[in-house]
Amino acid sequence: MGTATTTHDGDFANRATFAGADRAQLDDLSGVDVAIVGAPFDWGTTNRPGARYGPAAIRSGDYFGAHASRPHLPTAIDPFAELRIVDVGDFELPLGYMEESVAQIRDGITRIASQGVVPLVLGGDHTITFPNAGGVADVHGHGEFALVHFDAHADTGDTQHGQLLGHATPMRRLIESGAVPGHRFVQIGLRGYWPPPDIVEWMREQEMRTYMMTEILERGLTPVVDEALEYALSGVSKAFISVDIDVVDPGMAPGTGTPEPGGLTSRELLHTLRRLARELNVIGADVVEVSPPYDGPGDITSILANRVVLEILNGMAERKVAAA
Amino acid sequence: MGTATTTHDGDFANRATFAGADRAQLDDLSGVDVAIVGAPFDWGTTNRPGARYGPAAIRSGDYFGAHASRPHLPTAIDPFAELRIVDVGDFELPLGYMEESVAQIRDGITRIASQGVVPLVLGGDHTITFPNAGGVADVHGHGEFALVHFDAHADTGDTQHGQLLGHATPMRRLIESGAVPGHRFVQIGLRGYWPPPDIVEWMREQEMRTYMMTEILERGLTPVVDEALEYALSGVSKAFISVDIDVVDPGMAPGTGTPEPGGLTSRELLHTLRRLARELNVIGADVVEVSPPYDGPGDITSILANRVVLEILNGMAERKVAAA
Amino acid sequence: MGTATTTHDGDFANRATFAGADRAQLDDLSGVDVAIVGAPFDWGTTNRPGARYGPAAIRSGDYFGAHASRPHLPTAIDPFAELRIVDVGDFELPLGYMEESVAQIRDGITRIASQGVVPLVLGGDHTITFPNAGGVADVHGHGEFALVHFDAHADTGDTQHGQLLGHATPMRRLIESGAVPGHRFVQIGLRGYWPPPDIVEWMREQEMRTYMMTEILERGLTPVVDEALEYALSGVSKAFISVDIDVVDPGMAPGTGTPEPGGLTSRELLHTLRRLARELNVIGADVVEVSPPYDGPGDITSILANRVVLEILNGMAERKVAAA
Amino acid sequence: MGTATTTHDGDFANRATFAGADRAQLDDLSGVDVAIVGAPFDWGTTNRPGARYGPAAIRSGDYFGAHASRPHLPTAIDPFAELRIVDVGDFELPLGYMEESVAQIRDGITRIASQGVVPLVLGGDHTITFPNAGGVADVHGHGEFALVHFDAHADTGDTQHGQLLGHATPMRRLIESGAVPGHRFVQIGLRGYWPPPDIVEWMREQEMRTYMMTEILERGLTPVVDEALEYALSGVSKAFISVDIDVVDPGMAPGTGTPEPGGLTSRELLHTLRRLARELNVIGADVVEVSPPYDGPGDITSILANRVVLEILNGMAERKVAAA
Amino acid sequence: MGTATTTHDGDFANRATFAGADRAQLDDLSGVDVAIVGAPFDWGTTNRPGARYGPAAIRSGDYFGAHASRPHLPTAIDPFAELRIVDVGDFELPLGYMEESVAQIRDGITRIASQGVVPLVLGGDHTITFPNAGGVADVHGHGEFALVHFDAHADTGDTQHGQLLGHATPMRRLIESGAVPGHRFVQIGLRGYWPPPDIVEWMREQEMRTYMMTEILERGLTPVVDEALEYALSGVSKAFISVDIDVVDPGMAPGTGTPEPGGLTSRELLHTLRRLARELNVIGADVVEVSPPYDGPGDITSILANRVVLEILNGMAERKVAAA
Amino acid sequence: MGTATTTHDGDFANRATFAGADRAQLDDLSGVDVAIVGAPFDWGTTNRPGARYGPAAIRSGDYFGAHASRPHLPTAIDPFAELRIVDVGDFELPLGYMEESVAQIRDGITRIASQGVVPLVLGGDHTITFPNAGGVADVHGHGEFALVHFDAHADTGDTQHGQLLGHATPMRRLIESGAVPGHRFVQIGLRGYWPPPDIVEWMREQEMRTYMMTEILERGLTPVVDEALEYALSGVSKAFISVDIDVVDPGMAPGTGTPEPGGLTSRELLHTLRRLARELNVIGADVVEVSPPYDGPGDITSILANRVVLEILNGMAERKVAAA
Repeated sequence: MGTATTTHDGDFANRATFAGADRAQLDDLSGVDVAIVGAPFDWGTTNRPGARYGPAAIRSGDYFGAHASRPHLPTAIDPFAELRIVDVGDFELPLGYMEESVAQIRDGITRIASQGVVPLVLGGDHTITFPNAGGVADVHGHGEFALVHFDAHADTGDTQHGQLLGHATPMRRLIESGAVPGHRFVQIGLRGYWPPPDIVEWMREQEMRTYMMTEILERGLTPVVDEALEYALSGVSKAFISVDIDVVDPGMAPGTGTPEPGGLTSRELLHTLRRLARELNVIGADVVEVSPPYDGPGDITSILANRVVLEILNGMAERKVAAA
Repeated sequence: MGTATTTHDGDFANRATFAGADRAQLDDLSGVDVAIVGAPFDWGTTNRPGARYGPAAIRSGDYFGAHASRPHLPTAIDPFAELRIVDVGDFELPLGYMEESVAQIRDGITRIASQGVVPLVLGGDHTITFPNAGGVADVHGHGEFALVHFDAHADTGDTQHGQLLGHATPMRRLIESGAVPGHRFVQIGLRGYWPPPDIVEWMREQEMRTYMMTEILERGLTPVVDEALEYALSGVSKAFISVDIDVVDPGMAPGTGTPEPGGLTSRELLHTLRRLARELNVIGADVVEVSPPYDGPGDITSILANRVVLEILNGMAERKVAAA
Repeated sequence: MGTATTTHDGDFANRATFAGADRAQLDDLSGVDVAIVGAPFDWGTTNRPGARYGPAAIRSGDYFGAHASRPHLPTAIDPFAELRIVDVGDFELPLGYMEESVAQIRDGITRIASQGVVPLVLGGDHTITFPNAGGVADVHGHGEFALVHFDAHADTGDTQHGQLLGHATPMRRLIESGAVPGHRFVQIGLRGYWPPPDIVEWMREQEMRTYMMTEILERGLTPVVDEALEYALSGVSKAFISVDIDVVDPGMAPGTGTPEPGGLTSRELLHTLRRLARELNVIGADVVEVSPPYDGPGDITSILANRVVLEILNGMAERKVAAA
Repeated sequence: MGTATTTHDGDFANRATFAGADRAQLDDLSGVDVAIVGAPFDWGTTNRPGARYGPAAIRSGDYFGAHASRPHLPTAIDPFAELRIVDVGDFELPLGYMEESVAQIRDGITRIASQGVVPLVLGGDHTITFPNAGGVADVHGHGEFALVHFDAHADTGDTQHGQLLGHATPMRRLIESGAVPGHRFVQIGLRGYWPPPDIVEWMREQEMRTYMMTEILERGLTPVVDEALEYALSGVSKAFISVDIDVVDPGMAPGTGTPEPGGLTSRELLHTLRRLARELNVIGADVVEVSPPYDGPGDITSILANRVVLEILNGMAERKVAAA
Repeated sequence: MGTATTTHDGDFANRATFAGADRAQLDDLSGVDVAIVGAPFDWGTTNRPGARYGPAAIRSGDYFGAHASRPHLPTAIDPFAELRIVDVGDFELPLGYMEESVAQIRDGITRIASQGVVPLVLGGDHTITFPNAGGVADVHGHGEFALVHFDAHADTGDTQHGQLLGHATPMRRLIESGAVPGHRFVQIGLRGYWPPPDIVEWMREQEMRTYMMTEILERGLTPVVDEALEYALSGVSKAFISVDIDVVDPGMAPGTGTPEPGGLTSRELLHTLRRLARELNVIGADVVEVSPPYDGPGDITSILANRVVLEILNGMAERKVAAA
Repeated sequence: MGTATTTHDGDFANRATFAGADRAQLDDLSGVDVAIVGAPFDWGTTNRPGARYGPAAIRSGDYFGAHASRPHLPTAIDPFAELRIVDVGDFELPLGYMEESVAQIRDGITRIASQGVVPLVLGGDHTITFPNAGGVADVHGHGEFALVHFDAHADTGDTQHGQLLGHATPMRRLIESGAVPGHRFVQIGLRGYWPPPDIVEWMREQEMRTYMMTEILERGLTPVVDEALEYALSGVSKAFISVDIDVVDPGMAPGTGTPEPGGLTSRELLHTLRRLARELNVIGADVVEVSPPYDGPGDITSILANRVVLEILNGMAERKVAAA
């Protein structure tokens, strides 16, 4: 139980690799900097499902060739030239079996991270951040990194339909398990009508730092990110970045499960992510909650999520170039 | 564990009742003939999800008033006048927890059937026919009724992603558990490239009776249904009807998870179902695999599934009128 | 009040003429055989609106050139060569003013018919058949022609939301006003759960002839049409044809307001219409209930309605050629 | 004539109440603060119809439970805890009968307001603001409140298709009837190419205050809202808020009848509405022109309109809390 | 000029192979029976484009695993077990350069056929049948095989926009070049209003055999296919099968460029193709005119085209098994 | 070869003129200020096609009457009153014949410009800017005007699929041919991962001025436009404006071929274009890459492109009024 396998030919795969990156095996990542892996999982979604098709859609949300080259226009840096990036395919998960799925993802992420490689996970619903960041913590140490979390929702629910696992609870599970203590969380983009005050109170007790859209509207995004960076770097040097695509306004990201109006614009998100990946030491990341059936004929949410990955990779490459 | 509750106000409900039928509680069905219940469940779907929205979509696939009256134009019979039909809402199921969900559905169906009431279940993916027909068998006796199964697929897989439960395996589970032995199965509409020969061989050993689309094309539908009826009634007097909406050609039922070209037309299905419900003693039924996100702006699959329910109810009412 | 004007440049027009037919003015139709006119009207629709865009969509549902030539492949007859066919544009109707709109349509149809021209109306919802067939009756005489009506619904409601006019009542208004007595009606394709038995009883008293889909399924379409033709021609020589696109199964005509599963196939309808237009003396026709917003990216319902018009025109041309 | 009735089970209702609020009867609102009511009306729409489905879609544009609780994340205030909010269902309007429909809506709104209750109307097209604000004026006094109007269009047309009523004319009818004099209007978000200069001149003569998008782009939204608030509060203390969803850019609100590019972002609208509802004494409000058929699979316009209602309610609750 | 190359990683590829067949190189097909190749080409389309995405969509229109096994349920034959089937990827064609593209396709097909392999081409618009069947003729001899052509249209236009090449002219080019003389053509499913009589006359002069939908409706499909088979086999033993997906009714195949109502049903096409491939010696085939952007969220046209390929392969496998 | 003709009744036309402008013939433009012409061309598109329907969709993206009047709300200027604007229809181009199409467009544009008329071209993919701006240069002189280019992409590729023409190369062709030297280019909105550094280096050598989104985000749009204007006006007094609709974020312009997240908002683009057209002497313009099949049911991209045209026209009219 709980042993991960991956495949490029699963039911939900499109058989491409991300940007044409080389394929690799889960346990053979020597010399690799970043391993992209898909988690076609949506049985933790409380509303509109479809995120199981997220990994395939994010990989295909791209009109460039599959030649492992993405020279960034503004910086002239190509992350595929600076970093050794591979795609290990998608986890083969047992449909509708929650605990077993979560255990297998954690096993796989741990095996990636323990080879000194940064796992970059294509979701899947947000349930997976529990095993994603948890698996990274198993390797880098509990409490030893910040979790920068972009989302419309705090995802700190206690239970979901009476159960511990699901896309409303991953951050709670991370905190309670000690993998990522509350004071290591920076949340950006929260809004709406959830969670209720008792959970917000619990979040305060855990010393989570949250930046809601109201604060971003009033102060501007740049000073908020300045402060978030400072906070994230207090006491640790590493970070995991988790991007729920619903942090972006539904107008620009309709293909998602629980759209909440009033979010960031696409360009605010992309610009901020590249900056964070440049200024932080990223040891893991995920992009979650892309649900293609709700995306419309233009596929704009899948394409946006593809660029989320590219901007994170580019920021990491810029950091490496600057350090050289 | 395994105790069912139902609600009209769950996450996937549209709060209407089917055709405006009276609401009722699961354990208070005295005098009731048919209890409609929704199973918003799609974590057994191997491909395109969305069947969790099936119960709401089937209930709203209807442009008539919500006044519990559906006088059938060709027969002048109104099933809501002849039968006491209620809607008990949707099962409240734990998302992504397979075994617990199946257990709760079986508990709920058993509680309905044990009050002498016919459960008519709005799915949900086909996983649920295991607890649906299984729960009915727990009350009416294992092996004591025929299962007439409309589908493009046999649903007799051994396991699915290494697990016993899922929408590819319910008929196997029913047979293996003895609830519905193989020789009590009549399958209509099978086609395509699944299951593989070893499973087909197993099906033959179980003495399942299958009518593929090739046979229907060559012999015509009416003689096939004549024969199916005769077979279904050999040795027993009762029947459970399970309708996977993908038995209809994808051109007329696009909103489903695993569409297989070459199926029945809508009018063939509706006409046949009314005849079966008139000529058989129906003790349970389900309509499954309606996936609204894939249905397009016209919502034609949801509307078709609504009529599947109405034609079954009308056949039952015709039988009652004829017997009177 | 009640004076019709038409335009090719109204809010709902696409400015094309049907098949590139010549434009003409409502009162200047000398030498014309058929005048096509649009009625962008949907304020009589009880459910999904959008039929106001029907005339534009039917005109553009066509990948041929706009050169007023449609040589029919099986017959080699081009109706535009045999008949003088013009397009007078769309009625300019006051949005949401029911009685005034109906009065204006009737005025316009009467002015067309009184010049010896066959009006062929592109709807619009079915409300308009009251002024369409009524206006024709004002010219050709009340009770002096058969009305062959293709539809899933009888459209014989007494009132609609407490009012006399609407898309559920036109046939009743025609009968009550004497324009088309009940025994001059032939209805083909009825099905579903409306109207209720008291209205069906009233229809029988009026001696309306109805062929439901159940009868068509059991007897076959050809003998039903044979009989319908015989009935339509008993005592009169003229006919008005009214085609509600929802007579076709929703799988092949999703873009409509009240889709009812179990209908005719596209090819059955097209084939039958051409035959009727060849064997009857058509003095008016309409095609109604095309609602583009519900049609999906393929626009198949609009395209089908375009062919409904072409097949009627071709049958009329075949009749003229045969008579020559 | 002109007597309103409401229902939760009408043709266009989804049978849910807004956010699970208690149901109530139109004339039995004792102790109620806000009564939500739907107006499924689109026969005043000049272009793309479908707003008749607005009330149902706005109510269902929500992934939270139906338990009458919406704790606002940034303020920790739950409007359902602070205010007594009920849902009286949808008006039962005669389809396509303009004047009677308008009369019935005005009757219903008057009956709500005369019980000291704030009507919050879910449209429907913008025609309804004439009876909405007019009915409120019949109770609170003509000229006794400001009308803050968010819209891409001024809606001050003289007539529409030669008739007085329709979605292009409500503001003119309110001014001419004295219910809301021109100098009590504040309009925000206007843009595009309508109305023509003679109507703009008439608007100036009426002393309407209009803030176009060009001014908002040049000055910034906050100073414009500051000034608008000051103006709205000069001489009166009460306000009616009317939100045409097309004030938002079509990129974020595609599901509407007359989309005009270049509008507000979702977050600008939501933030501004909450502020207005907090700083003004709201005595009535409506949200109009949501047309679901044009909204795409993500339903983002319906969801946005749902949040428009919630932010108004939250501002009202904040005001009450601050006053306590 | 005119030298073909293929790729699995081109702009329009989904990088999968058909059904998981092994990849192969164009010039290294020793031991292969059938080579599947995509032609992402739509610059010969006169109306709705998008067929360039046909090859990718046909390959992905499949919910089975990518393990090169498709056991046919009715026959228990798996074509991948009986035949050596490979996928050589997609032609790399110069966008918008008609003559060069056609030359490259012909070169590629010739190279496949000259190795004794059956090319099965995934289109692409129908322009490509000129180089497809032409390339086969270059190897097997001009006039040495029948061309069985399923289509709504005859595709025998003289020129298209003044040019010789395009999707309206391939059959004319084949006849004029002598590759496939007119008397070797059998066309099934023609209907509508094109081509005009002078072209129909030319077709008769060429002794093309055409079965229109009107004849199929009147005689039934089976006797028509019996006769077509007899005709196809008179004088030759080999055949090329060309399937334009628009031979199927638009209700069941909306995702195409020039939909023509009134066509075959999906099951009629699939059943007939398998029979033909069993009874004829197939030396080449293509499936064309699948245009994904017009297909709607259910992707039913792509899925149907996938099954068209499978049924042809199965018929070929049945023939081989029967001959053994 | 290379002789342009235009039509209002071509395959891709909607037969309307833009805003109801008068129709005119290509060679009879005496007294005309601006001639609108469509180029239904997409065989230079490397990815999602459909731009051939751009001209029809842009013309119909409009809910105003077709009466050649568009009074601009903020300025009270009606460009149709100040300028003589006509619509000459669409070029009749040979499908899939690249060089001939480009030659014909250039011929047509030259004939328009040589009469002293400003051509305003509705695309079509971006390939057409080569003949559009090239044809203008043939009349006004090579190197004698600035090209202000809004786009996500630089469009300076060397070749495309080994060929010189296509939508990735027009700017390179203009520079190399001398029609528009590199130092006359101002590009606004670039972003993403193309072109690669060697092409960026070539662009620098050509002294092209590019403003990427990163710079716009950091400096603000207004100072960037100030500087761009200054640059465009250094040494010349005339300008050609080319607007690729994908300069706008895909959230607000999904209906395009190569959407790149992170772009301008609709209101930023509209506001800037009007300013440019007011402050520059516009001698030609085009709006390209609108692809309706990818636009969703709300048609928001087509509507936006319609407003792009109107804002350019309005700026030109403001300039004329100010000069008077």
